[in-house]
Amino acid sequence: MLKRYLPILTWLPHYHKRLLGADLLAGLIVTVMVIPQSLAYALLAGLPAVVGLYASILPQLIYTLFGTSRTLAVGPVAIIALMTGAALSSVAMPGTDTYLQAALILSLLSGGMLVAMGLMKMGFFSNFLSHPVISGFLTASGILIAASQLGSLLGVESSGFTLVERLMTLVPNFATFNLPTLLIGSGTLVFLITIRRFGKATLHKAGLPLTLADLIAKSGPVFAVVVTSLVTWHWQLAASGVAVVGEIPGGLPALSFPWGDYSLWRALLIPALLISLVGFVESVSMGQMLAAKRRQRISPNQELIGLGATNLAAGLSSGMPVTGGLSRTVINYDAGAQTPAAGAFAALGIALVTMSFTGWLFYLPIATLAATITVSILTLVDIPMLRQTWRYSRSDFAAMAVTILLTLCEGVEAGIIGGVTLSIALFLYRTSRPHSALVGRVPDTEHFRNTERHDVETVSNVALLRIDESLYFANARYLEDTVYNLVASQPELEHVVLICSAVNLIDASALESLEAINARLKDSDVKLHLSEVKGPVMDQLKKSDFLEALTGRVFLSTYAAWREFS
Amino acid sequence: MLKRYLPILTWLPHYHKRLLGADLLAGLIVTVMVIPQSLAYALLAGLPAVVGLYASILPQLIYTLFGTSRTLAVGPVAIIALMTGAALSSVAMPGTDTYLQAALILSLLSGGMLVAMGLMKMGFFSNFLSHPVISGFLTASGILIAASQLGSLLGVESSGFTLVERLMTLVPNFATFNLPTLLIGSGTLVFLITIRRFGKATLHKAGLPLTLADLIAKSGPVFAVVVTSLVTWHWQLAASGVAVVGEIPGGLPALSFPWGDYSLWRALLIPALLISLVGFVESVSMGQMLAAKRRQRISPNQELIGLGATNLAAGLSSGMPVTGGLSRTVINYDAGAQTPAAGAFAALGIALVTMSFTGWLFYLPIATLAATITVSILTLVDIPMLRQTWRYSRSDFAAMAVTILLTLCEGVEAGIIGGVTLSIALFLYRTSRPHSALVGRVPDTEHFRNTERHDVETVSNVALLRIDESLYFANARYLEDTVYNLVASQPELEHVVLICSAVNLIDASALESLEAINARLKDSDVKLHLSEVKGPVMDQLKKSDFLEALTGRVFLSTYAAWREFS
Repeated sequence: MLKRYLPILTWLPHYHKRLLGADLLAGLIVTVMVIPQSLAYALLAGLPAVVGLYASILPQLIYTLFGTSRTLAVGPVAIIALMTGAALSSVAMPGTDTYLQAALILSLLSGGMLVAMGLMKMGFFSNFLSHPVISGFLTASGILIAASQLGSLLGVESSGFTLVERLMTLVPNFATFNLPTLLIGSGTLVFLITIRRFGKATLHKAGLPLTLADLIAKSGPVFAVVVTSLVTWHWQLAASGVAVVGEIPGGLPALSFPWGDYSLWRALLIPALLISLVGFVESVSMGQMLAAKRRQRISPNQELIGLGATNLAAGLSSGMPVTGGLSRTVINYDAGAQTPAAGAFAALGIALVTMSFTGWLFYLPIATLAATITVSILTLVDIPMLRQTWRYSRSDFAAMAVTILLTLCEGVEAGIIGGVTLSIALFLYRTSRPHSALVGRVPDTEHFRNTERHDVETVSNVALLRIDESLYFANARYLEDTVYNLVASQPELEHVVLICSAVNLIDASALESLEAINARLKDSDVKLHLSEVKGPVMDQLKKSDFLEALTGRVFLSTYAAWREFS
Repeated sequence: MLKRYLPILTWLPHYHKRLLGADLLAGLIVTVMVIPQSLAYALLAGLPAVVGLYASILPQLIYTLFGTSRTLAVGPVAIIALMTGAALSSVAMPGTDTYLQAALILSLLSGGMLVAMGLMKMGFFSNFLSHPVISGFLTASGILIAASQLGSLLGVESSGFTLVERLMTLVPNFATFNLPTLLIGSGTLVFLITIRRFGKATLHKAGLPLTLADLIAKSGPVFAVVVTSLVTWHWQLAASGVAVVGEIPGGLPALSFPWGDYSLWRALLIPALLISLVGFVESVSMGQMLAAKRRQRISPNQELIGLGATNLAAGLSSGMPVTGGLSRTVINYDAGAQTPAAGAFAALGIALVTMSFTGWLFYLPIATLAATITVSILTLVDIPMLRQTWRYSRSDFAAMAVTILLTLCEGVEAGIIGGVTLSIALFLYRTSRPHSALVGRVPDTEHFRNTERHDVETVSNVALLRIDESLYFANARYLEDTVYNLVASQPELEHVVLICSAVNLIDASALESLEAINARLKDSDVKLHLSEVKGPVMDQLKKSDFLEALTGRVFLSTYAAWREFS
C-alpha cells in the first residue's frame, strides 16, 4: 500500500554503488544541459528567467519520491510554458506581482487537480485527447512558439498568444531589428541545426566513439550558451542593444503560499485543467515509451499523483507549472540514468548553480535562448502527419485541422477545447448513423454476409438485418427508421431478425425504440426476432419486460433462425 | 421539390367535401377546447393571457402550409411555456415591455434555428436528448409547473423558476390564502380529476354513445371555465380577491418585428436552442405516433422547417414560442381532423374569438386555469419510469436522476444541459472500457465463445481476443493495456488474434495504438493477427501502412486462424 503511493520504496532499498555512479553522471549532465532550456521556457511563459531554475529543483526532488517512471525528468517544458503564458496574461500584466502570483496559483490548481484525478483513478480522462487532437495541438504550438521567438531572434518587440497577434505586433516593428542580436540569433540557429543534423555522424566519422559523439552533439546548446555569453561580454554587446538575461537573484527559491484573490483562483480553473491534461498526456506517453524500452511498467494513476505533487511543490517554491519534459527526459535517459536518484542529483546540481553561479548567466543573450527553443520546438511540427491522417480518415483530419486552426488563431485553450469537442461530436455523429446490412446465407455454410457485397441466399418473407453498432440514444431513432423503411419496402415480410453480433450495449432509449418497433411490427403482422445477442446485453434485456413482449424469439445463432424460417 | 418544402400541395389538390365537413367540425371543437389552455400557458410563461391566443392563430395557419403531419395542432404548450418563462425572467422583469419583446425575440431565434436545422437536415441533433433525459425532464417540469400553480390555486403570491424558489416564496405567505379562490381552485381540480378518470365510463353506462361520452368528458375544462366564470360574475367574487383574467384587448395581434437590443438577442441564444430542441422532440414524437396510427409518414427534417416557420410567425405576430402540443393535438385527432385544414379552421375560430368575444373571458378565474394546467400536466409525471430505469440500467438512471434534480433545483436549462452532458459522458465512459473476452472453440464447431463462460478448446501459444467495441480514441489506450497484460501473463504466447466482429470503426488514435501493439509484440516475438474484420473497416485500414507492417495475417474467420495454428 505504502509502496503504491511512494514508489521510491520499491527501488531505494535495493540501491547500490554501481547505480550511484551511473545516476551521478547522468545528474551532472542533465544539470548542465537543462539550465538554458529552463531559463528559456520561463521567458516563454512571460516569467523571469530564474523561475525556470526554481521550477527544476523542488519539483524534481518530489517526483523522485512519488513518480513511477525510472527516467522521467520533470521541469518546465515548452508547451506547458506556452499555455501558462496564455493563461497568465489573461488575468494579469506580465512583469507585475500578480502575474508571478498567478503562476504559483496555476501550479497549485493544476497540482491539486492531478492529485485528485490520481486518487480517483481518473487517468482515463486523458484518453479523450485523441491522437489527431494531440498531434494537431503540438504542431500548432510548435508554430506558435517559433513565431513567439522571432522577436527575440531579431531584437524586435512582439507580444500576444495567437499567431495573428504575434505577427501584427512583429511586422510593423520589423525594420527596427538589432544587427548584433540578429547575428547572434541566426548564428546560433544555424549552428544548432547543423550540429543536430550532422554533428553525431561527423564526430563519429572523425574517430570519436558513438556515445561520446552523441553526447557532444547534444551539448550544442551548452556550447552555444558559453560562446555567445563570452562574445557578448567581451564586446559589451548589451550596450549595443543585445538583450541579455542580466541580474538573476542568487539563493534558493522562497517557500510561500500564494493566497491571492478568489477571482484569480476561479479564473485559472479551466486553464489549470487543460494544462493538467496536456502535461499528463505528454509526461505519461513519454514515460510509457521509455519504460517499454527497458521492459518496465509505469502506473498512470500513480503518475497523476506524482505529477500533481510535483506541481504542488512548484507552486509552493516560487516555480511554474511543470511536467515530464521530452528533451530533458531524453537527455537523462541517454546519459544513462538508472533510477529517479539521477533526477534528484540534477535537482541538487541546479540548486547549487542557483545558489552560487547565477552571475555566470548575466551576459547570456536572450537570442541564444530563443534559438535553442526554436530548434527544439520545430521537432513538434509534424506536417506529414496531416497528409497521413487526411488519407486515413476525413473526420480525424477534421478534428486535427480544427485543433490547429483554433490554436493558431484563437490560442491554446480554444484549440484543445475545440478539438476535443469536435472529436467527441464526430464520434457520436458516426455512431448515430450506424452501418447496417441485410444479410443472406453463404450457400452451404452457416455464415451470413451482406446481400449487396456477396452472392447469398435469401428468403422473401424473412429479413435478416445486421446492425453494426451498439444501440444507444444517439442511434435509437435511426434504428426505428431503418426497420420501418425495410417493412414498408417489402410488403411480403413476415419476420424481421435483428442480428446483434456487433451490439455491445442497448441503453434505455434503444430499449424503448425496440419496444416501439416490436409493437409497430405487431400491428402489421410482422414478427420481430433477435439473434446472436451477447451475454452481457442479454443479461440486461432480462431486467426489462421486452423479452416477454417480443412477438418473435431470440435465436442463439442466425443460422438457427434461418433453419426455422426456410 | 416544391411539394417537399410546401407539403400543403400534396393534400390540398385532392381536397373534397367529405373532408371539409370532418375538418370543420374538428376545427370548431379545437377552438373551444384550446382557448382555456392557451390563456393558461401564456400566464405560465409570465405573459399576458391574450398572448396565448395570438400564438394560436398565425402560427397554426403557417403550419398548415409547411407541416407534414396531418393532425398536429400547434400552439403554446406547458413545457415550452415553462422554459420561456425561465428564459425571459433571466433577461427582463415580468410585466415590462422588454419582457414582451424578449418573448418575440425568443420565438424568432428559435424559429430561425429550427428552419436552419431543417435546411441542413440536422434533425438527428434531437437524438442527443436521450429517453431518460426527456422523461426525467418531463417529470421534473411537471412537478415544477404544478408547484407554480399552487399559488394561483390558493390565491397566494409566489414566484421563481426552481422548486426551491417557488416554495420559499409560497410558504411564508401561505396563511394569506383567499377562501373563494381556494374553493374555486380546489373545486375545479376535484371536478377535472373526477371527470377525467370516471367521466367517459359513467356517461357511457348512462346510455350515451362512446364517442359522445368521450367528447363530453374531454370538455370538462370548457365546462369548468363556463361555470366558474358565471359564479365569479354572479357573486362579483373579483371584489373578494378572486383573481380573474380581466380585460383582454380585442382585435387581431399586431404584426411587428421586435428589434430590441443586441445583448437581448445574444442572451436568448442558448435558451432558444434548448426550446427548439425540446419543442421539436415533443412535436415530432407525437407527430410520428399519430402518423403511425393512420399509416402515414412524417418527414422530421421538413417538420423542423414547419415548426421553425411557425415560430417565426409567432415572433412576428405578438405571440410566444410554440410547438406541436400533446393535448391540443389529441383533441384535434379525436375530433376527427383529416387534414391540416382542421388546424386552419381552429386558427380562424380563435381569431374570431380574439376579435369579438374576449369580453366573455373577463370573469374567468385564474384559479380555474391553474387547475386546468395542473391536471393536464400531472400526466407528464412518470414515477414508475424511475423504478423501471433503475432496474434496467444504473447509468441511464443516473442521467435521469441528474436531469430531474437539476431541473427542480437549478431550472430547466441546467436540467437539460446537465442531463445531455452526463448521458454523453457516461456513454463515452462505457465505451472507453470495452468488454473483451478471450475465446476458445466450441468443440467440433466453427464457433468461438468466451473461455470464462463456456467449456471450450484453447491452444497455449495462441490467444484469441474478441474486442466488443469499436476502437476509437477513448478506448485505444485501454486496448493497449489489455494486450500488454495478456502477453505479460502468458509468456508462452506466440500469436495474438484480435477478433474484430464487433469493431465497427477504427479511428486514427486506435490505428496508432494498433501500430504500437504490433511493434511491441514484435519485440517480444509475438505475432499480431486480425480476424473477421468488417468490409468498411478493412477498406479504411487499407488506406494506412498498418497492414504492411502487421507481423501476422488478416483471417476471414476466426476458424481459419484456429486451423492455421492448432
